[in-house]
Amino acid sequence: MQYQVVIQLSSADFTIHKGMLDQISNLLNDLDDIKVEVVVHEEAYPFLLENSYFNLHVLDLQKRAVQFYVCENTMNAQHLIKSDFIPEVEMVSSGVAHIVKRQSEGWAYLKAGF
Amino acid sequence: MQYQVVIQLSSADFTIHKGMLDQISNLLNDLDDIKVEVVVHEEAYPFLLENSYFNLHVLDLQKRAVQFYVCENTMNAQHLIKSDFIPEVEMVSSGVAHIVKRQSEGWAYLKAGF
Amino acid sequence: MQYQVVIQLSSADFTIHKGMLDQISNLLNDLDDIKVEVVVHEEAYPFLLENSYFNLHVLDLQKRAVQFYVCENTMNAQHLIKSDFIPEVEMVSSGVAHIVKRQSEGWAYLKAGF
Repeated sequence: MQYQVVIQLSSADFTIHKGMLDQISNLLNDLDDIKVEVVVHEEAYPFLLENSYFNLHVLDLQKRAVQFYVCENTMNAQHLIKSDFIPEVEMVSSGVAHIVKRQSEGWAYLKAGF
Repeated sequence: MQYQVVIQLSSADFTIHKGMLDQISNLLNDLDDIKVEVVVHEEAYPFLLENSYFNLHVLDLQKRAVQFYVCENTMNAQHLIKSDFIPEVEMVSSGVAHIVKRQSEGWAYLKAGF
Repeated sequence: MQYQVVIQLSSADFTIHKGMLDQISNLLNDLDDIKVEVVVHEEAYPFLLENSYFNLHVLDLQKRAVQFYVCENTMNAQHLIKSDFIPEVEMVSSGVAHIVKRQSEGWAYLKAGF
């Protein structure tokens, strides 16, 4: 069986970012066949900036087929453009709309954070 | 396609209230056909009181077919009655039960907050 | 109709633990036929330790068919073993993987916290 999960990250908290990365590792280790998408919006956008502390973690997970998205509403609010982010990051027009769409397609949902 | 999402708001945090209202605007702008319900319970109940800072925002979203619910368990715990709330707010006997019912009917779920 | 919900608890916050217990009581009171599972991981593990402040609450809910799980990844990170926990607690290899599996089986999801 293939599992599919969309993870919402809206926090600027470093320990929440770290906890989410650990959760993704655990998902990939525990489930043989899983697609993971991470939607980054609101205060969480620094997580995906090119100079992010977690830059290498993100690149490593992308190699394991985890897809990272940043919300264009957040980008506009923060006056950011695509080149400000880690190169492989993709854009979605609305982060929450993407999460709703995925759930309506049957994906599971996890909210990152404590 | 019609999308349906139930949003859980349990926080008293002003910035979380504001962030959720922005998220709802983004949902309505990005998805042509979407039903949104907001379930307010626990510490979040001041958000829907008649003197709420967000009173006008709530009224505006109600005109756009967003439905706001307050949890009767929370009302009882806080000794509040229907007339303490913005008039169009509806009651549900249990906020979390309403969220579980909606998900079992296929609705997507978002937890407000960071 | 039988409802099914998996609740994620990842916080160490006492008020979040208390709020979740209230939510579970409300679910059991409001829905005649509901299965509830609570997945405890990350910083939340003290909630299920044998000397937990909520020990008796957990035992009482277990009698009402609420199942509590602790994440083995968290146990390993904290150097804990099965006998450190309330006896009836069960283990899952990965808390988040269990939550994803349950949602893919049609269970609703609630994230505990504010």
